Amino acid sequence: MAKKLAEETLIEGRNAVMEAFRAGKTIDKLYVQDGCQDGAVRSIVREARKQDTILRFVPKDRLDAMSTTGHHQGVIAESAAYDYAQMEDILEAARQKGEPPFLILLDGIEDPHNLGAIVRTANLAGAHGVIIPKRRAVGLTAAVARASAGALHYTPVARVANLAAAIEDLKKEGLWFVCAAMDGTVMYDLDLKGPIGLVIGSEGEGVSRLVREKCDFTASIPMKGDIDSLNASVAAGILAYEIVRQRS
Amino acid sequence: MAKKLAEETLIEGRNAVMEAFRAGKTIDKLYVQDGCQDGAVRSIVREARKQDTILRFVPKDRLDAMSTTGHHQGVIAESAAYDYAQMEDILEAARQKGEPPFLILLDGIEDPHNLGAIVRTANLAGAHGVIIPKRRAVGLTAAVARASAGALHYTPVARVANLAAAIEDLKKEGLWFVCAAMDGTVMYDLDLKGPIGLVIGSEGEGVSRLVREKCDFTASIPMKGDIDSLNASVAAGILAYEIVRQRS
Repeated sequence: MAKKLAEETLIEGRNAVMEAFRAGKTIDKLYVQDGCQDGAVRSIVREARKQDTILRFVPKDRLDAMSTTGHHQGVIAESAAYDYAQMEDILEAARQKGEPPFLILLDGIEDPHNLGAIVRTANLAGAHGVIIPKRRAVGLTAAVARASAGALHYTPVARVANLAAAIEDLKKEGLWFVCAAMDGTVMYDLDLKGPIGLVIGSEGEGVSRLVREKCDFTASIPMKGDIDSLNASVAAGILAYEIVRQRS
Repeated sequence: MAKKLAEETLIEGRNAVMEAFRAGKTIDKLYVQDGCQDGAVRSIVREARKQDTILRFVPKDRLDAMSTTGHHQGVIAESAAYDYAQMEDILEAARQKGEPPFLILLDGIEDPHNLGAIVRTANLAGAHGVIIPKRRAVGLTAAVARASAGALHYTPVARVANLAAAIEDLKKEGLWFVCAAMDGTVMYDLDLKGPIGLVIGSEGEGVSRLVREKCDFTASIPMKGDIDSLNASVAAGILAYEIVRQRS
């Protein structure tokens, strides 16, 4: 079952990959065999660049190992298991509910369990959507869909080229941004009631400097223990529910 | 790296397994080849029963697939990557800190990511320890240790044969028990300040009836969305931090 879902998101072979691009399917990543220079592969790479798809040039044995059909012909595309939403869809969802927007922005979550768990939290905490970056982050893969326990059917996830620029755009819509950081203000002391974007950093490195600088305040979860940080999806859950508590 | 850690927790072959039992190593599970009836294997099974180890009789090809040495001789023991604590150690930790005990009890968590993330949360929320059941639950495997991000070095985890009986014992020490349940009282409306045990159920089925009946109250996380439940480690984090908030 797990295998089957995972396979559905790999598209292999020149015709199949080109067709997927032409059909407007969302391709998260395109793997191309190093040194493949013939016309068909060049056309695919051109199409991928046009659509701002992440490109990875890899040795043939890497493609052989990924391939489930044995006929990749030098190209394997990783398509999203679910469709991405647009940022505007998320704002519209908030408008339709007559609620101040509540978004969760993820700066570089790489673990599919964590992304799935966060989409699940977003759904139950009443967030209107999740925004993830295109690069250095996991997309809506089959593993993420499974970990989301169905939440991907309901909670829109948008993918943006630049998270800092997305924050700038959303500020024009009246959103405030709070960034999770260990040295931030204790979350209970912040007013988290208005239209808000909650920014959660990656498992290893937290929120990047560029994104953090765009945020209006930083919130910390009180920590009493010996280790450095909570699991990213747990931290997202605790902060999201502090927003729920303050709004209720 | 991941492979190496995982291998360290498998003990294969008759002598090695018997030695592990004699040395007092904690064995989470013993896998024995179906139909193996000779003296050495019978002695190992007797020792395992004496120590209340979980026994699994499996076909030879299952053992062959698990084996990393190729020489299992009909027995493979899964040893804990970390030592278990005693319940008394956890209560003593609370006493030494001069704090009312705060324990997290897990009723059947099977996913190592979730157990690791919860031990991590327990550490940072200032819980004095975690209690897990012997059966139908993941133990302190290498995967759990990794997911705990070091928290297993600091936060004691005890393993008990019967969670309901453990709750009875802990009530004599003055603890109150709150059980996570969707139909419970909204957590903000409960007084969670005293000596407390927080009981979290399994990913699929929640807290079992027998354990739930031992609890003094049930707490729910407010849910606004479309799906059924949060990820178990996220739910544990949100409830643990509601306890932190009320205590601070």
